[in-house]
Amino acid sequence: MSKERRVPHQFEGESLESVFVGRRDGEARPTVILIPTVMGVSDLEIGFGKQLVELGYNALVADIFGKEFHGAPRDTCFGEMTRLRSDRAALRRRLQHVLEIARKEDGVSENQIVVAGYCFGGQCALDLARSGADIAAAVSFHGLFDPPGLPKEKIKAKVVAFHGWDDPMVPPEKVVALGNELTEAGCDWQIHAYGHVGHGFTNPHASDLQIDGVAYNALAAERSWTSFISLLEELFG
Amino acid sequence: MSKERRVPHQFEGESLESVFVGRRDGEARPTVILIPTVMGVSDLEIGFGKQLVELGYNALVADIFGKEFHGAPRDTCFGEMTRLRSDRAALRRRLQHVLEIARKEDGVSENQIVVAGYCFGGQCALDLARSGADIAAAVSFHGLFDPPGLPKEKIKAKVVAFHGWDDPMVPPEKVVALGNELTEAGCDWQIHAYGHVGHGFTNPHASDLQIDGVAYNALAAERSWTSFISLLEELFG
Repeated sequence: MSKERRVPHQFEGESLESVFVGRRDGEARPTVILIPTVMGVSDLEIGFGKQLVELGYNALVADIFGKEFHGAPRDTCFGEMTRLRSDRAALRRRLQHVLEIARKEDGVSENQIVVAGYCFGGQCALDLARSGADIAAAVSFHGLFDPPGLPKEKIKAKVVAFHGWDDPMVPPEKVVALGNELTEAGCDWQIHAYGHVGHGFTNPHASDLQIDGVAYNALAAERSWTSFISLLEELFG
Repeated sequence: MSKERRVPHQFEGESLESVFVGRRDGEARPTVILIPTVMGVSDLEIGFGKQLVELGYNALVADIFGKEFHGAPRDTCFGEMTRLRSDRAALRRRLQHVLEIARKEDGVSENQIVVAGYCFGGQCALDLARSGADIAAAVSFHGLFDPPGLPKEKIKAKVVAFHGWDDPMVPPEKVVALGNELTEAGCDWQIHAYGHVGHGFTNPHASDLQIDGVAYNALAAERSWTSFISLLEELFG
């Protein structure tokens, strides 16, 4: 059975609190760092983590914004996202810090780490890959694709982006730009595009955000999850 | 165990010979019509068919060019492809004929037919979907995307295209155009793009064609097959 434990950590003076979901049997397992949507750590990501534990992995649901923002209202969370996106070099350091935290956790096989993120978290997963981090894979679920505008590194991670073609934040030209960027960066990559699917498709409560083009899509949620698990099997099976 | 049987048929005065691969136990099963590459019916597609039979499906490896072209040299096959592509309305009729042949085969569950094709065959699968055919899905493996230039029908099939991003015959603008075309046609669709992968990636002998950008890619072959089987499970599981 999976156990959750709170993982407090400090980054440049800020107090963060991530959530580790895993078995406590002393065995080191492949681990997925799950980076939440703009709304921060929630039951959604913890639930995904529990599903991963059932399949033999661990999950660390990473706190990016800070403990004080857990459960904060929408506009506050969007404000934090905007703050972090405005300095991508600082965001990169923050993500590298999260990776270090994950590596130190009990039960984490430190060379078998995958980073997967949702919406803003998807951009974070890509940004960590773009930093040249030693991770097995970076996975974006309806993430933002904008490159960070930092010096380019060789990407070592395998990259997979699950993308809704009607995502109003990521039009087709950005999909093409990501493909070309990842090709240039030399990494093994995939983009799975889904027709008639918008932003936020993995989140059953996406419509609560009341943003046009942001909605749950059960089929795309299922397909992307199935392909994600196939990737984990390809890496660690 | 699977049995192969030759299926002779006639289309507009031409003699074709497809190959049915399936069990002969009288049970009706979901069936995949496999449309070969430009080289026509070969052991490659029959081998894919046998794998499908192991998973509980039937396969009909469709002869598109005609019996006299089985095993023909490369240039002859390319000539036939060019001939058929030059009249997409006639090609559509030919594909509708193949679908009818499949429906009549013993052991075929006629409302559970998927059409999957390779290279030129991928275009054929898309063209059959574009005709508004009553098929469960149309799947393109490194297929050509050019629309047929015929009056547009509502597409009923689910469409999936597995695509190598470096395919010299299908540059990124054609990927975007396909996404937009399928969105307009109202169908459920997916495009899976693979980085550093060219044309012909499912075929271990693709390099024999000696065409730049045409090469086998084991990882893309495996990923696309895994996703294809997931689709069949989604449809018929």
